[in-house]
Amino acid sequence: MVVRAAVAGASGYAGGELLRLLLAHPGVEIGALTGNSNAGQRLGALQPHLLPLADRILEPTTAEVLAGHDVVFLALPHGQSAAVAEQLGEGTLVVDMGADFRLKDAGDWEKFYGSPHAGTWPYGLPELPGARQALKDTKRIAVPGCYPTAVSLALVPAYANGLAENDAVIVAATGTSGAGKALKPHLLGSEVMGSMSPYGVGGGHRHTPEMIQNLSAAAGEKVTVSFTPTLAPMARGILATCNVKAKPGVNAEAVRAAYEKAYADEPFVHVLPEGQWPATASVYGSNAVQIQVAYDESAQRIVVISAIDNLTKGTAGGAVQSMNIALGLDEATGLSAIGVAP
Amino acid sequence: MVVRAAVAGASGYAGGELLRLLLAHPGVEIGALTGNSNAGQRLGALQPHLLPLADRILEPTTAEVLAGHDVVFLALPHGQSAAVAEQLGEGTLVVDMGADFRLKDAGDWEKFYGSPHAGTWPYGLPELPGARQALKDTKRIAVPGCYPTAVSLALVPAYANGLAENDAVIVAATGTSGAGKALKPHLLGSEVMGSMSPYGVGGGHRHTPEMIQNLSAAAGEKVTVSFTPTLAPMARGILATCNVKAKPGVNAEAVRAAYEKAYADEPFVHVLPEGQWPATASVYGSNAVQIQVAYDESAQRIVVISAIDNLTKGTAGGAVQSMNIALGLDEATGLSAIGVAP
Amino acid sequence: MVVRAAVAGASGYAGGELLRLLLAHPGVEIGALTGNSNAGQRLGALQPHLLPLADRILEPTTAEVLAGHDVVFLALPHGQSAAVAEQLGEGTLVVDMGADFRLKDAGDWEKFYGSPHAGTWPYGLPELPGARQALKDTKRIAVPGCYPTAVSLALVPAYANGLAENDAVIVAATGTSGAGKALKPHLLGSEVMGSMSPYGVGGGHRHTPEMIQNLSAAAGEKVTVSFTPTLAPMARGILATCNVKAKPGVNAEAVRAAYEKAYADEPFVHVLPEGQWPATASVYGSNAVQIQVAYDESAQRIVVISAIDNLTKGTAGGAVQSMNIALGLDEATGLSAIGVAP
Amino acid sequence: MVVRAAVAGASGYAGGELLRLLLAHPGVEIGALTGNSNAGQRLGALQPHLLPLADRILEPTTAEVLAGHDVVFLALPHGQSAAVAEQLGEGTLVVDMGADFRLKDAGDWEKFYGSPHAGTWPYGLPELPGARQALKDTKRIAVPGCYPTAVSLALVPAYANGLAENDAVIVAATGTSGAGKALKPHLLGSEVMGSMSPYGVGGGHRHTPEMIQNLSAAAGEKVTVSFTPTLAPMARGILATCNVKAKPGVNAEAVRAAYEKAYADEPFVHVLPEGQWPATASVYGSNAVQIQVAYDESAQRIVVISAIDNLTKGTAGGAVQSMNIALGLDEATGLSAIGVAP
Repeated sequence: MVVRAAVAGASGYAGGELLRLLLAHPGVEIGALTGNSNAGQRLGALQPHLLPLADRILEPTTAEVLAGHDVVFLALPHGQSAAVAEQLGEGTLVVDMGADFRLKDAGDWEKFYGSPHAGTWPYGLPELPGARQALKDTKRIAVPGCYPTAVSLALVPAYANGLAENDAVIVAATGTSGAGKALKPHLLGSEVMGSMSPYGVGGGHRHTPEMIQNLSAAAGEKVTVSFTPTLAPMARGILATCNVKAKPGVNAEAVRAAYEKAYADEPFVHVLPEGQWPATASVYGSNAVQIQVAYDESAQRIVVISAIDNLTKGTAGGAVQSMNIALGLDEATGLSAIGVAP
Repeated sequence: MVVRAAVAGASGYAGGELLRLLLAHPGVEIGALTGNSNAGQRLGALQPHLLPLADRILEPTTAEVLAGHDVVFLALPHGQSAAVAEQLGEGTLVVDMGADFRLKDAGDWEKFYGSPHAGTWPYGLPELPGARQALKDTKRIAVPGCYPTAVSLALVPAYANGLAENDAVIVAATGTSGAGKALKPHLLGSEVMGSMSPYGVGGGHRHTPEMIQNLSAAAGEKVTVSFTPTLAPMARGILATCNVKAKPGVNAEAVRAAYEKAYADEPFVHVLPEGQWPATASVYGSNAVQIQVAYDESAQRIVVISAIDNLTKGTAGGAVQSMNIALGLDEATGLSAIGVAP
Repeated sequence: MVVRAAVAGASGYAGGELLRLLLAHPGVEIGALTGNSNAGQRLGALQPHLLPLADRILEPTTAEVLAGHDVVFLALPHGQSAAVAEQLGEGTLVVDMGADFRLKDAGDWEKFYGSPHAGTWPYGLPELPGARQALKDTKRIAVPGCYPTAVSLALVPAYANGLAENDAVIVAATGTSGAGKALKPHLLGSEVMGSMSPYGVGGGHRHTPEMIQNLSAAAGEKVTVSFTPTLAPMARGILATCNVKAKPGVNAEAVRAAYEKAYADEPFVHVLPEGQWPATASVYGSNAVQIQVAYDESAQRIVVISAIDNLTKGTAGGAVQSMNIALGLDEATGLSAIGVAP
Repeated sequence: MVVRAAVAGASGYAGGELLRLLLAHPGVEIGALTGNSNAGQRLGALQPHLLPLADRILEPTTAEVLAGHDVVFLALPHGQSAAVAEQLGEGTLVVDMGADFRLKDAGDWEKFYGSPHAGTWPYGLPELPGARQALKDTKRIAVPGCYPTAVSLALVPAYANGLAENDAVIVAATGTSGAGKALKPHLLGSEVMGSMSPYGVGGGHRHTPEMIQNLSAAAGEKVTVSFTPTLAPMARGILATCNVKAKPGVNAEAVRAAYEKAYADEPFVHVLPEGQWPATASVYGSNAVQIQVAYDESAQRIVVISAIDNLTKGTAGGAVQSMNIALGLDEATGLSAIGVAP
């Protein structure tokens, strides 16, 4: 069986990464590719690495163009997916790579995104408790944000096993592709090379409520998150440093055991051997997640560090992984756990 | 049919890239992995991106360890392949990723490498005239150097079609992985980030006679090459700028036509549409070659620019491509022409 | 008055940065330059950016060579300064850029550095309460570590003003020059470019007790620190993200007011206007410190972010600033608060 | 004597670098700062590294604002300087950092810039034969382009000494700041990091006629130039590889002797000792030029490589150096030959 997939938003980084993965997927045929401001252009001019699609012309993002596909991926700006999705048939698998259907709390959505809440779809992070089951046979998938992917995989075992106090401090570094292709001065190469800088400090980043949602579900109570994202001089990758106070009686062995057990059967999440630390280079271009834990005895704190590729496991790879589950395919079809390094 | 492959020199960058490709190759099973100073270590500590092989232990590079494989890849320091190869059976396909068997002229070998000439094997650059045929059913393959791959593919059509005077000026920028994992001060991250610098200027680089060999074969006469390699602040990629005086009567159309014809049927070499220029990012991690040509009318010179990934098409991908031909497989098996970008 | 200064350890990154600054210092004449493994070499081969000193030859690091200078800077591996310092006369100003004389607690020293404690010298971070006074007329200066510089300047105002609970979580990204010129595989350009990775996680980094010492002094009680350093793909710079629980009743205005007051008269520490965030590029090559604060209302946490150049304010610039005070010069002599950007 | 200087175009990279240098210049007081689209903004928001000027407000670029200064620097888009300059008094020293007054041949100007030729001013590259003399007491200075600075200093000694055939092949790598702050997709950090790519290939780059002008003047006959610029993953720096056929009878010693003699008395141009090669990191943020020569005996070609900082010696440092000459100051006032490395 080969499904036919359309990609709305094929000119951006998320759309480009998705196409890179779909080109290697044995069960997918690439159908319509759409853009908005770029409609009418050759894909080769916009995504020069996607040679087999170089002569494809971007079409406008309309329901007519997207109709007639088995799967439609939406890589659109936040707030635009709902209008498109509701025009697609119920039999079409719609995979939203934007934020529109991630949050359960309408108030959170409105506070952080400023538009009416569109609803909630099954959440495309199969490694979370219960998530894989909810993705089976679904026709609607909300792909998680890149930071919430890295952070939730890092901290859910701590909370699900009652190891941590509910006050998480998270600092994450991201590659610049996480900010997309927007033409903003601070994203120019001259500005980012050789520089680290923070943004969205103090609780303002839109991915914060999504992290809180995932961690609170695991903890069974509201978890507070203080999240600081930073921009690093690299194109891809997220390194998330997650620091939580250990509950009384917790020790290093208990922490390690919880993580090794949580991910023992996961194809893409790897708890590294003691002494080895995650590096974003090791997961470059792959769907892998590298995790390591430490127990800071002096501070009685648990430090969990995860590394992902923001465009792959953090966006397009996570989308394909969830699509595979929804379609009844082997979850790892078309995906690799091997990074492109050095 | 699945062949069993050993890799001698699995701890270096070339060996690591080869393993990345072989892990995705449907016709190859990975056998023994060897190192020298690293024998006894877990591969996971040396190549943390190769998760499926993390628990493999490196063995010493001996004929006993390498025996019993269908294919043996040698990723050894220059001058060490011959001694290993002669202990391997004639029925074993030996793919040498070092320089030992590339040069036909013993004097060139001795001048540039300083040791006795070991011989010449079929040359693993199938896109060169006659090369593909020579690789069929061979049991010995000499994988080209990374710079000669980029430069020969850029200039052979000009020489094979009589378009250029035999005095080539070449300046190429390489990523630091081209220098390997050697612990040298000038390869430290602090030194290379934010810096461009040349090396081996004035005819001293060991890849120069290999370029001359390939270009002279195409021209039917001795071609002079002045080659300047430069080290660029990136891990991977070669951008080769090749500049040759046009023969009288040559014009832009003739140049473009020759290149488009030369590579019309090649799966990995792409002459870009006019107005689009190669970028190493577009071929990152792929076996693709991007080429563009320009005719500098004022100087009556032909400028050909090629971009490759030095570790993939420039080394390990070229090795797999040639192995595929020697084994009678589809040449592109296990290889991708799609870069990992941005 | 011009003082004559010797530099022990002139071949490393700290020594090189110090020489860059001393060359621009109107009150300093550069005397003997020493190395150990590099003794006998031209400085031009080791520090090619220091053109005016290119023909200087490194001498061995001995008391005889260092004698007869007004100031001796020690940029030596940890544990080697004491033996050299005790051979220098009491009238010589000795500025130790290593760790040997930073820690007051002998137990901390022995736990983290594994050798006998050599003592404690006046601490070269004049912006700390009381520190400037202690540096006046001193003949011995212990230059702080780069991370403690960034972190102490970021958090001391919070603790000195009773704003924060005594449980600090700190994540800092450093450029690779912070690891020195040591030839280690993980410091190769091929490894660090495009990659973020942590190290010394869980309380093991040697700079942790120094931070605790400074923050505890400001708080008047023992402060717990959980510190995670990460290596960023850049040559220079530290971005420190410091996160502390706010004490009850604290609000955003109180936090900002405390910081603006603390640094109102400091020539090198700048609390940025609201809405502007520190970037390491902005302080590149300068002695400036950029600080910004945020109050995360949802988590009731204070987030303070500081950016420094690890080699300048974090090491050599801090050393010169403290030397200026000890010599009775204007504190900013020979130092710049202007970064080299972009 | 302190002169008062205005800077038109203070928000761009050239303007920012100029202000960095002027802030350290003992003979200059900074007057009006102007922008166009940025008029009304705080400089601190646009140039966060220029802390002492953070609260300055950009004014519009008008003759009224620029009037009343001793020196006016024009860092404006090409073609806009002439209109501003003619409104400034003849007694004002006008330093044009754009291209408007560099070319002598009106036809070249019109062909490459597409607007009427404004004239020719004394050329601000004092190291060229006769140039220093022409700058003395001048009130108008045309600052050279960054590439022509690197290339002319590299090749003029070869041509002035009759060593080279008049057919130069030049390949240069530039940092991204050379392209300015323009918001173009190919200048985004995600695109440039990890990538090398060419542009303006085949004779189209606007700096080509300026190189030809300088080299031809030195040779006494028309020199042909085939110039290929490439964009490198770094913010600053130009590495120019210049390759010319040697005239009969030329040898390595003659080449070296010519270069050492040409620059023996220059404060900023350094011919490196044999065996040491230029690196852009070594001249980062400085006004220094590093040059090395090689004679490629096999190809009978001379290879000259130069490294500069495109923003400093290539633009703003060259402007200050020429201003110093015009004002009768020591040529090196306020300028450094020491790079910021690593």
